Amino acid sequence: MVLFQLLSRKPPPRPLDITKEEREAVYKTIFSRRDVRNEYLPNPIPDEVLKRVLTAAHHAPSVGFMQPWDFITIKSTKTRAAIKQAFLEAHKEAADMFDEAKSEQYKGLKLEGIMEAPIGICITCDRTRNGPVVLGKTANPEMDLYSSVCAVQNLWLAARAENLGVGWVSIIHHDALKKIINIPDHITPIAYLCMGYVSFFHEKPELEKVGWLNREDLSNVVHEEFWPENERI
Amino acid sequence: MVLFQLLSRKPPPRPLDITKEEREAVYKTIFSRRDVRNEYLPNPIPDEVLKRVLTAAHHAPSVGFMQPWDFITIKSTKTRAAIKQAFLEAHKEAADMFDEAKSEQYKGLKLEGIMEAPIGICITCDRTRNGPVVLGKTANPEMDLYSSVCAVQNLWLAARAENLGVGWVSIIHHDALKKIINIPDHITPIAYLCMGYVSFFHEKPELEKVGWLNREDLSNVVHEEFWPENERI
Repeated sequence: MVLFQLLSRKPPPRPLDITKEEREAVYKTIFSRRDVRNEYLPNPIPDEVLKRVLTAAHHAPSVGFMQPWDFITIKSTKTRAAIKQAFLEAHKEAADMFDEAKSEQYKGLKLEGIMEAPIGICITCDRTRNGPVVLGKTANPEMDLYSSVCAVQNLWLAARAENLGVGWVSIIHHDALKKIINIPDHITPIAYLCMGYVSFFHEKPELEKVGWLNREDLSNVVHEEFWPENERI
Repeated sequence: MVLFQLLSRKPPPRPLDITKEEREAVYKTIFSRRDVRNEYLPNPIPDEVLKRVLTAAHHAPSVGFMQPWDFITIKSTKTRAAIKQAFLEAHKEAADMFDEAKSEQYKGLKLEGIMEAPIGICITCDRTRNGPVVLGKTANPEMDLYSSVCAVQNLWLAARAENLGVGWVSIIHHDALKKIINIPDHITPIAYLCMGYVSFFHEKPELEKVGWLNREDLSNVVHEEFWPENERI
């Protein structure tokens, strides 16, 4: 074995190395992750699956290792109905903001699955956690909010790896959400997520499919060394 | 085959389903991702690897599919030296903000690998992209910033799956960074990341290892249905 390694001139794999197959699994998960609104099944999520997904979220990077997040899991139909009502209010306001053609298209889109998904998860940020001076937050105080967003994305990918769909309901006033689930003043809601098993995952994002916007070419958003001189308008 | 499926009463796997092995690969990647500062190797990153990682970042979720991000890849030693200088200034300011004991410990930590990693990546957010009214941003205007953070986390995990280390340099004033790489006024820097192959990945976050802060128990950050009455202070 040692001789073989010497002959092949390849160092032995290290315990935490990711293999080619494992890498492909990560890309499959990243590229097939969707914002799910329509395809939720009522099937309950086993506790151990929910725990795995939350553990993945809790292992997100955080500035100064402050772990500013909390996760509130919401199963009650009554609570979800109140959240749905708060969505409907914000959604109605939003429809009036678009020009006429876009507003009609907007009203025809299904943008959340609050009642269909068996569970909602609210992810928050406690900006006061671990004291007033946090390593890594001194020049950029928004870093704690961004840490909680990293937890959202870890949760979303872990859920996808469990074949669970997730949808981020951003059309909701966070003050309304805070009242419904008793979040105190000093805590900032970051995301309200719906989560559940799905009948299928769309091959493309739904907003791309219906022609709301196209996916930008990668070459248009990658620049070498500096922001390009003839900058995007 | 069909008979076997009928007998086993299990539906055939769907093309986008994630298998158990693939799921384990995703968790391995999430749990072994680190903020790397010390272990960078100078080995260059092949173009196709860099492209895969940036493609993964570009497939992050974004509010209203607006894809507000740009990615500036920085290899020049001169530019990285200017960024290192900007880090040093913000780092010096920061050291004075902690109390005496913490300040001494802070000064002893290595918190970035700007010169050691062969590449830096600046991820930005264009808050004006796709017009003044963006689907999903109407109630929460910060959603575009959060979309770019999701791109950071996708990039970080894709890099880990390529056995590349990444470190987020948040101890830097973004105005200084904008000047160095010509970022226009209306663009918001979200993250400056160092990226490179590494000699090894730490088993635990370094700030946990040196006793800066401990990892919180998951049970302390997960709550059912409502924010707990005897809330964390």
